[in-house]
Amino acid sequence: MVRPGGSSWREQWHEVIFEAETPAGRRFDVALLMAILLSVLTVLLESVPSLSARYLLAFTTAEWVFTGLFTLEYLARLAVVRRPASYALSFFGLVDLLSVLPSFIGLILPGSSSLRVIRILRLLRVFRVLKLVGFLTEARILLSALRAARRKILVFLLAVLTLVTILGTLMYIVEDANAGFKSIPMSIYWAIVTVTTVGYGDIAPQSVLGQFLAAIIMITGYAIIAVPTGIVGAELVRATRSDISTEACPSCGRDGHDRDAEHCKYCGAPLAG
Amino acid sequence: MVRPGGSSWREQWHEVIFEAETPAGRRFDVALLMAILLSVLTVLLESVPSLSARYLLAFTTAEWVFTGLFTLEYLARLAVVRRPASYALSFFGLVDLLSVLPSFIGLILPGSSSLRVIRILRLLRVFRVLKLVGFLTEARILLSALRAARRKILVFLLAVLTLVTILGTLMYIVEDANAGFKSIPMSIYWAIVTVTTVGYGDIAPQSVLGQFLAAIIMITGYAIIAVPTGIVGAELVRATRSDISTEACPSCGRDGHDRDAEHCKYCGAPLAG
Amino acid sequence: MVRPGGSSWREQWHEVIFEAETPAGRRFDVALLMAILLSVLTVLLESVPSLSARYLLAFTTAEWVFTGLFTLEYLARLAVVRRPASYALSFFGLVDLLSVLPSFIGLILPGSSSLRVIRILRLLRVFRVLKLVGFLTEARILLSALRAARRKILVFLLAVLTLVTILGTLMYIVEDANAGFKSIPMSIYWAIVTVTTVGYGDIAPQSVLGQFLAAIIMITGYAIIAVPTGIVGAELVRATRSDISTEACPSCGRDGHDRDAEHCKYCGAPLAG
Amino acid sequence: MVRPGGSSWREQWHEVIFEAETPAGRRFDVALLMAILLSVLTVLLESVPSLSARYLLAFTTAEWVFTGLFTLEYLARLAVVRRPASYALSFFGLVDLLSVLPSFIGLILPGSSSLRVIRILRLLRVFRVLKLVGFLTEARILLSALRAARRKILVFLLAVLTLVTILGTLMYIVEDANAGFKSIPMSIYWAIVTVTTVGYGDIAPQSVLGQFLAAIIMITGYAIIAVPTGIVGAELVRATRSDISTEACPSCGRDGHDRDAEHCKYCGAPLAG
Repeated sequence: MVRPGGSSWREQWHEVIFEAETPAGRRFDVALLMAILLSVLTVLLESVPSLSARYLLAFTTAEWVFTGLFTLEYLARLAVVRRPASYALSFFGLVDLLSVLPSFIGLILPGSSSLRVIRILRLLRVFRVLKLVGFLTEARILLSALRAARRKILVFLLAVLTLVTILGTLMYIVEDANAGFKSIPMSIYWAIVTVTTVGYGDIAPQSVLGQFLAAIIMITGYAIIAVPTGIVGAELVRATRSDISTEACPSCGRDGHDRDAEHCKYCGAPLAG
Repeated sequence: MVRPGGSSWREQWHEVIFEAETPAGRRFDVALLMAILLSVLTVLLESVPSLSARYLLAFTTAEWVFTGLFTLEYLARLAVVRRPASYALSFFGLVDLLSVLPSFIGLILPGSSSLRVIRILRLLRVFRVLKLVGFLTEARILLSALRAARRKILVFLLAVLTLVTILGTLMYIVEDANAGFKSIPMSIYWAIVTVTTVGYGDIAPQSVLGQFLAAIIMITGYAIIAVPTGIVGAELVRATRSDISTEACPSCGRDGHDRDAEHCKYCGAPLAG
Repeated sequence: MVRPGGSSWREQWHEVIFEAETPAGRRFDVALLMAILLSVLTVLLESVPSLSARYLLAFTTAEWVFTGLFTLEYLARLAVVRRPASYALSFFGLVDLLSVLPSFIGLILPGSSSLRVIRILRLLRVFRVLKLVGFLTEARILLSALRAARRKILVFLLAVLTLVTILGTLMYIVEDANAGFKSIPMSIYWAIVTVTTVGYGDIAPQSVLGQFLAAIIMITGYAIIAVPTGIVGAELVRATRSDISTEACPSCGRDGHDRDAEHCKYCGAPLAG
Repeated sequence: MVRPGGSSWREQWHEVIFEAETPAGRRFDVALLMAILLSVLTVLLESVPSLSARYLLAFTTAEWVFTGLFTLEYLARLAVVRRPASYALSFFGLVDLLSVLPSFIGLILPGSSSLRVIRILRLLRVFRVLKLVGFLTEARILLSALRAARRKILVFLLAVLTLVTILGTLMYIVEDANAGFKSIPMSIYWAIVTVTTVGYGDIAPQSVLGQFLAAIIMITGYAIIAVPTGIVGAELVRATRSDISTEACPSCGRDGHDRDAEHCKYCGAPLAG
């Protein structure tokens, strides 16, 4: 969106910060992505005890340099954007704010500063910068398939939650506390670990009846894992099948033509679309 | 289903308890759902040893208050419904009864009162209360896909059971009792844990031959996990395929015609659409 | 297959033993299925040390009674069937033989008598006895879908085997023997456990580099688990889609009619099939 | 590709080494495959400590015999091929080189000689030797489905990586270091192990809040495992759909017409079929 000449400093800066069309805008975005990546990496490495002990000063410096930069950038975005409120409440506006807050909160509430890792969400801007428009289309197809399957997945998850509550309670009654089934919530946790086929093994049935019940739960889980897969798969089959136009031939009136068809496949007359 | 005027107290109460169309009926259902949720939560928390020790009296009181309320409600439903027997034998009638029984049985058989958790099934009424009719449609599509795949899944499960019996026996012969393969039923349990990819690790092969056999079992399981997924997926693809019209033949009344059909495929009469 | 009158004793016995049409044949088959189930159950329970110690005599007696019965039955089948050689070499003929052999081999080679569990394969006869013909159709659809996907699955398995060999070797170089990666075959076993998402946890990477590599392996496995599922699913979609007849309308010549169609859906003319 | 008479020694050797049409070429390829298999097996067995200690000399001899043979073969391939550079940079050229390098590098960098296992990739030649052309077609369908799903899978993997980074950080804040969550990278490793349903159990949440969060992660992972499966499945459904004719338009020469098309959808000319 290149605006016509005579632009104020606000519009020039808007182009640099918000757009990626001009060389300056592109350089700004690439530098920003590098800074985000480095900043996330710093958070990850700072959490490693051995590194944290040796390079404490470097990490603290890096934290405040990045937080300072991102705070400045956030304020600049607020300053140059036409409607600051609508930016502040948009997805990226909230992510930008959440990226700098944890450092300041960390001053009061020690430990929470690791939440800076949320900055990784800012990397989603990479799609715009690198002009990966094709990827955006793919992401949109995936999201629309998931959205179409939304209700089916919710119904499925409610059914699974009901199931694991009842199964967990049964296991709590059947199994011993020594095997790890110390309370019903703990047993429900185990049932979720089992039905999703994660299977840590920190809690495992030890009585014959418990193992029998667990075997039934596993085979049930095996059969129902098919359901969400089937749901999303069916939606994706439908989504990728949308390459058939709804246009009817103006000559013979029959439809079912491919989107790229220029002539009716039945009578050969040219198609309008 | 609002019935025409001059209704007796029974019909008025029927509306409140069984329907969710009137404000009173809606309030009753919402209050009921809250009570069910609270009651299930009580059962879960009561099973946590530390909480149970400290709030024993509160939990016992809550148990009997909820059980009393649900017993009253069950009797009220029996009193106001037109055909008590058919309600008592319906799915929700049985669930309502099973929701109060465990408390009473718990007086004789200690420990079984945790089964009150079955009350969670009563939450399925939430769909009616919140008018989530769209969800009911989705649930019906899922169920019909599962029902259509019923036989294929059963054949598949029988094949899996036969497989794990033979594989479990082989592992019992090959592996040592020290590795956990103490008996054939135990080895079958291990085979189920492995084929379903749960993999607790409480029992794991330790000899070279055992690990070789286990690797084959895992890769087999990997290949056959595709089967139930494929079954349900194929049914859902068929269920969501929208190329079947809902129109019935005006002549013979049968439906299931393709969208592009111009004549009934059963009697040949022209279709309206 | 009821044969016309004047049948010899051989044909009468053939009907009882091999068919399930007459009352006598049905009773024979049901009794046989019960005996097989009991015999398999005996093998399972005999392997439990505590039961085996207490009921040794009972188990030994049961083993030889069942083995005797099944041996007699096998000989009877050979005697009454028209072509003994072709029965003996058929799937069920081989299973019948393998069901009795382990007991006799067990006299020489102790421990192998557990292989009697192979008798469970004889239960596949249940489909014929209970006239579960619908299930046979479903089983046939499943098998034909698997057969159609045979080559794709084999190519996929070869690719997986190549992958785990290379990944296992990399982990062997990267990880310590103390973490369980004692040899390349052991590391390949671990790679299979990981790629199939079984994840016992008896061997798990402990170095940073090893965990990084393992994370890549897991995400790869996550992506490729989609492949066999997609293969079988696509075949099943195709298999269940075969309810479209290949017959063309004798009047207007267009095809794509459902198998149960009696009239052309385009012109209404009756179909021949 | 048999070349016309009067061929030089180079062309004759080219036929033996690169082709599998003549008896000599076939024998060469079969011998090569055996040597590769044996050589890979040697690498696997050499890594087993007990075997390595006993047969050290045999393993070292075998290593250098195979490495010598494969080095000679690689030089021969370079000598007889028409364009040595293009062979050396082709997939098989690089694999052939990488198959012999590790032994020589192992002289300087002990431990790296296990990388000889990369020779297993040379086995991919087996498809050409055994004329498993049908398999090549299947492999090509699989690869093209994966290539078509490439972008969707990449978007999906990026989403998963973002997710596990944030989830891992949350678990690091919530859980104790004693439970294994010693640093954010460690917690991200755990999140990957959980989301992919591998579930080793070497790190497992122990606090109530951690288990609650883990349960949510597992159920999320359960729901999103459906996505890659659905993606590949949908592509395979499209790939195996046979309603696209292989016929090219006799007028404009473009193909991809539906089976029921009577006219070319691009130029409108009538189709022959």
